[in-house]
Order: sequence, then structure tokens, then C-alpha cells
Amino acid sequence: MDLRRDSNVPLYRQLADGLANEIRRGRLLPGTLLPGARGLAVEFGVTRKVVSAALDELCAQGWMTSEPRRGTFVATGLPLHGFAQAEIEQHQLAARVTDAVVTAGPSLRLDDGLPDPRLSPLDALSQAYRDAVSRLARQGLGYGDPRGDSALRDVLSNFVNQARGLVSTPDRVLLTRGSQMALFLTSRTLVPDGAFVAVENPGYESAWNAFSLAGAQIVHVDVDDEGMSIAHLKECLNQRKISAVYTTPHHQYPTTVSLSRDRRVELLKLARDHDFVIIEDDYDSEFYYSTCPPLPLCAADEFERVVYIGSFSKLLAPGVRLGYLMAKEAVVERAARVRSALDRLGDPALERAVAYLIEDGELQRHSRKARKVYAKRRDAFIQGLARDVALARWFQFSEPQTGLAVWVRARSSVDMTAWSARARGLGLDFVPGDRHVNGGTPVAAFRAGYASLNPAELERALRLLAESAPV
Amino acid sequence: MDLRRDSNVPLYRQLADGLANEIRRGRLLPGTLLPGARGLAVEFGVTRKVVSAALDELCAQGWMTSEPRRGTFVATGLPLHGFAQAEIEQHQLAARVTDAVVTAGPSLRLDDGLPDPRLSPLDALSQAYRDAVSRLARQGLGYGDPRGDSALRDVLSNFVNQARGLVSTPDRVLLTRGSQMALFLTSRTLVPDGAFVAVENPGYESAWNAFSLAGAQIVHVDVDDEGMSIAHLKECLNQRKISAVYTTPHHQYPTTVSLSRDRRVELLKLARDHDFVIIEDDYDSEFYYSTCPPLPLCAADEFERVVYIGSFSKLLAPGVRLGYLMAKEAVVERAARVRSALDRLGDPALERAVAYLIEDGELQRHSRKARKVYAKRRDAFIQGLARDVALARWFQFSEPQTGLAVWVRARSSVDMTAWSARARGLGLDFVPGDRHVNGGTPVAAFRAGYASLNPAELERALRLLAESAPV
Repeated sequence: MDLRRDSNVPLYRQLADGLANEIRRGRLLPGTLLPGARGLAVEFGVTRKVVSAALDELCAQGWMTSEPRRGTFVATGLPLHGFAQAEIEQHQLAARVTDAVVTAGPSLRLDDGLPDPRLSPLDALSQAYRDAVSRLARQGLGYGDPRGDSALRDVLSNFVNQARGLVSTPDRVLLTRGSQMALFLTSRTLVPDGAFVAVENPGYESAWNAFSLAGAQIVHVDVDDEGMSIAHLKECLNQRKISAVYTTPHHQYPTTVSLSRDRRVELLKLARDHDFVIIEDDYDSEFYYSTCPPLPLCAADEFERVVYIGSFSKLLAPGVRLGYLMAKEAVVERAARVRSALDRLGDPALERAVAYLIEDGELQRHSRKARKVYAKRRDAFIQGLARDVALARWFQFSEPQTGLAVWVRARSSVDMTAWSARARGLGLDFVPGDRHVNGGTPVAAFRAGYASLNPAELERALRLLAESAPV
Repeated sequence: MDLRRDSNVPLYRQLADGLANEIRRGRLLPGTLLPGARGLAVEFGVTRKVVSAALDELCAQGWMTSEPRRGTFVATGLPLHGFAQAEIEQHQLAARVTDAVVTAGPSLRLDDGLPDPRLSPLDALSQAYRDAVSRLARQGLGYGDPRGDSALRDVLSNFVNQARGLVSTPDRVLLTRGSQMALFLTSRTLVPDGAFVAVENPGYESAWNAFSLAGAQIVHVDVDDEGMSIAHLKECLNQRKISAVYTTPHHQYPTTVSLSRDRRVELLKLARDHDFVIIEDDYDSEFYYSTCPPLPLCAADEFERVVYIGSFSKLLAPGVRLGYLMAKEAVVERAARVRSALDRLGDPALERAVAYLIEDGELQRHSRKARKVYAKRRDAFIQGLARDVALARWFQFSEPQTGLAVWVRARSSVDMTAWSARARGLGLDFVPGDRHVNGGTPVAAFRAGYASLNPAELERALRLLAESAPV
């Protein structure tokens, strides 16, 4: 651990952060008794006061516990931190992974279902961004339309109309900072303060956070192998007024099942009968591996009841923050008013750049190419899972027809959190399925994104997964 | 007017939008009686049904009024629309202005105090963006830290510490989508739902909107020629608990006065005594024309009570959406959690690109260069205002020592809304001061941004302003 005396960060913080990192790395295991303050002071070349301050900090943060007369221990059962905390940690982890490449071979991550930016046309995006800045600068690159760049709203409408059977127009489009902001804006615009949004459970926790931030209350609806349970939704509707239902029908997050045809019809009918809005999150529908992907719910509804949400983040890279919501004009106008107060407008240059990529067919070419690559990676991953004797003994799954991830279920009860901790120790990261369940109820499953790893990496990931299996 | 039959937009909407545009352009004047439906149908080559639908739409939107047996008139006293609507219109106007360049000579705008992107290092920004994408792609360009790119948080801390006497560290920085999002996040993080934020009046309406969206209630505090009235603030503090005070001490928005030294001291003391947070919006402090600009309030407070908000939008271009808040670490961490639910994270590539521009000294060079140019433009504008006999008769102003705008006050009561409507007819846009006053109380003043116009344009703007004076 490298403490920097010339840093703005006080020594005790550096020490605390460093020790927390060791815990995250799995090098300091839960339950470990730490050496005394004097020993640590000598080891790190600091005063005992700095050591005490660092340990106090770690105890306050929950990383350690102090027991009178026994000493300081690494905490057991470390809680899942808030979303931001997890993201911060993930980022620190990613930075470490990059460092680790040099020293000990790369760590791998079975992520949430992210694309592989190594395949993305990022050079073309940079070039298009340059063209866009240069074009927009001539008009002042000023504050623009809070609904977003008109050129992108135009080509995007045509794009989704052709590819997904919608009937959008530029005035039905609001460009957002990734789908996350679209979720917030939709809830804020259509769900009264304190009213209820029904969500799938297991489901997308980030969406629940967006709705809560927007002032909504959450109702959790069960999911089975046909998607959201309409029977359970009906029960919920009988108990209380529900203003909106959030769903991922194309392939449910996290379980990847497609909402069955009958349930689609029923859901749309319920929306009319019970006067609620359907928030359809179509988060990576570009990636389908059967010849005939289902159309969005919205295609059958023509924006009467459905707000349709999409994103470019899965097509380009998660760090390219560009999503959209599509809805009736009046809804888009109201959402634009909220958006004005939130961040005024999006990034005009990025929006225009993506418009250029679509106009040039670049994004469509990339989508076709990536789909083929991801289909092969899916096959490699699920065949590997099925072929490996140790893994096949533990896991089962349904072959996903769309998307970038598999929902891997254990055949019997097993502590996936412990499994993931062991895997992390070996250099493989994955998030146990609890993260996607309301209240963090343990679930013997996890979501495995296969798209961002190449075949060699997938093979290694499977080996590490098998090696970290319970003995 | 060009109606497109192959468009997704119905004909009646195209016609309605076209007519609304004619009103905005000043070519259809308030009170004008329209020809009958049959005449309009012939003129535009559409059916009478289309004409009727368009007129109904325009009446519903308030652009027109229909009087039985008399016909349809362009509405008089057209209301100021909501913020979003105004932005949308402004954008349409800008598009029109661009078109107009070809046909009838450019329209000019005395804007809100925007920079001139013609001077900005946008090529360097594009190049840096490309470098950043290429660098970040190697790490996956994934979801990163919700506080923003660590490289930019790092250089930005050093930058503000050196330039503005702060004591920031990277952990005290949260990068946001322009200052607008920083305002929302600060309020949401530090002001309980329904609690009060005191703001300057006249002041920055967009900030009020951000606070309202975040759930706060607004208390308006008077402004005089020393900035926010501390006496009035004290009265408000006696009447109710105030959780935060929003202020623009460097040069008050919109009046450009600097908060006096005594009031700064008093405000900081009040914050301790009454336990409120000061939200300091230092929106374009790069631009000062005296040798010794005042330091931010925050410099005297070291983030104990002050949340410091800044932006790159005024340094680069309004369309470059990058701002920041600086606060105690604990506040930054809480705000990062809100931000995660809002849009997950910022634009990592743009953030890194700006870090490169600062590291290379590019932004600092631009800032020095622009400051000199803007000082000359300020002089040209205020000398022109003072020299023109017609204008000098109507207006007075205090010479602004900082920023990009002048607060131009009428010497006697005059209807600035009518004046701005006449000016718009001649090709000069400016926003009457009412926009910055709570409740839109008429105020015989307006904010004139001089920085985005070159000397020839400023001269023309002054001439048009004089030509549209009341007769």
C-alpha cells in the first residue's frame, strides 16, 4: 500500500481506503483479526494516531468492527452498499483490474449484460462528434431544444418505425442521458407524488431508484417463466390504484424471459381498464438471435398507453450516455419541461454525432455485426456451462433468444454471495442475483453477461466459476 | 409556407405550426383578423377541414382567439410560455435565424450573457474527445464513478484551488450536466422535501425551477446595489426555517452587482447562526476585468457551510454540458447517490476531454484570450449605449466589472415587453427583465449579454435597439 504524504487526502483516509480495498480484493478476509495499532503503525510508517483514525473510519463505515479487549476485526456479512457506493467501488475495482493487467493477469467480469466496446464504432463516433461540433458551432452551440437535437429525433423516429414497427414522429421523441433519465422523467411526468408504480420482481433496481427519486412508491409484482405475472398484477390492482406499470417485455431483466403473447394482450387491456401507463423499457432489443423477434408492446398500442424507452448505451458503450423516451406529444412536452429544470438539455454534439452514425448506416452495420458476434459468444458460454461437469451439476438455464445475458439458476439452494466472494478471490467478478430482488432476498441464481468477453475470456471465466464452486 | 404531404406530421399540425411561426416572427401581428377558412384553404392548397383543425389547435394553444360571427384573430397579450416552451421556441427561432441568413440578413440576439463559441477551442475539444474515447475504450468505456471522471475531478480541484483560493480535493467534487443539474442535486441532497430555499429576486429562474423540481419551496429575497439584501433575508429567517440560501455573489444574476464585503461576512455568519447551507453559483467567474476579482464566498468557508457550483458552459459553449458542485465529502457522496438514480453518471469521454484541455493549459489560454476580447466588447457596448442620444435618454447602467452581461435599466417607466416585441420585428432579440422577477412583475430593465456579438454586430444591435424605442 502506497501512502502519499504530498497528497491532499489525509494519511488516515489513505490508509482507511487502502485497507477497505484490501477487503474488497478479498485479501483481508471477513473475520480476520488485525494486528495492534502499534504493529500497523510500524508496518505503514505512520503514527499510531493515524492508525486509530483510520480504524475508527473503517468501523464507522462498517468495514470493521472493534471488540473491547479483543481488537479490531474485518466485519463479517458486509452489507450491500447503496447503489452509488457500489458504482464507486466497481469503478475502483475497474481501475485496479487495469493495474492488475500488468502484474497478475487480468480479472474478468461476468457483467450485467454490457456490450463489448472493442467492437463498437467508437472511432466513427469520435469523427462524427467532431463533425457535429464543427457544424453546431456555426449556429452558436447554444442552449437548444430540451427535447434534444432535431436531426436525431428525426432519424431515430424513422429508425424505430422501420425496425420495431412503431409510429413515432420527431415530436414524440425526447432524448435523454441514457435510459436512466428517461425512467426518472417518465415517472415524474406521469406518476403523481406518492402514487404507485408496479415493477417486476426480480427486476431492475436502478429503475426502482429512479421512480423513488421521482416521488413514486413501488409495488413489486412476481415474475415467472412467461414474464411479469398478470395474475399477481391484478391482485395488486385490486388492492390499490396503480399509476404506472414498468416492464421489460422483450427480455425481462434480469431473468431474460420474453413476455408471452397472451400476457401482452392482457397487459394492454388492463392498462385501459385500470387507467395506468405502461413504461416499456426496451433496453437492448437490437440483439436478437431468432429470425422473428417480438415487436415492442408499444407497436400494438401506438403510444396511447405506452411510454417506450430505449438507449444507445448497449449499442455503443455504457459510457455513451444517450437514451430516449417516446410517447404522445403532450407527454413529451410535459417531460421536456421537467428536463429543462433538471439539466436544461442533452449534449447537442453527441446527439448530432449519433444522428450522423444512423444516417450513414454505421450504427446499423455495427448492430448486425455485433449481433453475430454476440450470438457466438452466447453459444460458447451456454455450451461451456452445460459441458463443464462441475458447473452442469450446479446450474441450469433457459437459452436466451435475445439480449446480452443469461439468467443462471442453481439446481439447489446455494449461497451465491459466498460463491461470488470466492470467485472474486480468484479474479472473477459477478453479482449474485439477490441484487435484483426486492429486499435482497437470497436467490440461488445470477445474471451472467457474456457479450463483453471474447471466447478465450469466456472460457477462463467458466473455469474460474467452476473453481470457486462450493466444495 | 411549405406544407409537406410526405411528412409524418399531419397537415393541420404543419399549418398550425407554420402560422404560429408567422406570429413569432412578427409577420402576423396581434389583433390581426385572419381570412376565412375558404380563403386560407385556397391559399395553402388544403381542405377547409385541415384549416379548421389548424385554427382550433392554434386557439387551444392560445395563439389565436375565435369570436362568433367575427372570425379568428391573432391573440393579443400572448402569454409567456413555460420554460420548456420558451426554449423550444428559441430553438425554432435559432433555426429560422440560420435560414434567414441566406435570405434577409441575420437576426441578432442580446442574449443572457453567453460566450462566443466562435472564440472557443472547439477543435481542441473535439480532438481531446477523440483521445479520451480512445483512452477510455481500452478500459471498456463502461459505467463509471457517479461523481465523474477522476482525472477531471483531480485537475479541476487544483484549478479552482489556484485560481479561486478554494481548498478542494477530488473527493469534494461531483461533475454534473451543467450547473443546472448541480442545483437540482444540491437541493435534493440538502433541502428536505417541502423546506424553504431563499433566492435572490430578481434572480435566476432556472435555479428556482431546479429547486422546485427537487421538492423545495422558494422564498424570494430582495436585491439592491450591494447584492442580496441581508436585512430582508433576516426578516425571512425570522418568519420561517430556511434550509438553504441560493446566491450569485460574484456578480448577481441578472443585475451583475457584486455582493459587498460586509454582506459576505454577514451571510456566512447567518449561515452558522441559523443553520442553513449557502448554495454559491459562481457561474462565469473566469471573466473579470478588474485586477483583483473577489474570491468566492466558499474560499472563506472551506466547504463548511457553502456548496460551490461552477460550469464549463460559459468557458466553452452553452451546448457543452459540463458543470460541477463542490462540497464536503459527505455531501458529495449523498449527491452522488441521487445522481446515480437520475442518470447514473456523466459523460466520461467529455469529462476526460476537458481534463486534457486543462492539463494542456488550453482552457486557461482560452480564458485569458476570451477575457480580453470580452472586455473590449463590454466597452464597445456600454460606450455605444452611453453615446447614442436616443438610448442614453432612456437607459442607465452600472459598468459591470465581471461577467458577460450588463443590466440595463430604464430611467423612467417603460414597457420593455412592447419594446422587445418591436425590436424582434426589426431583427433584434432580447428578453425583457420581467422574466427574472418573481411573478413576472414588470421591471423597466433588461439583461444584455454583449460577449457573443462581435463589434460590428454590437453596433447593429444598438442601432436596432434605438430604432425600436418608443416614439
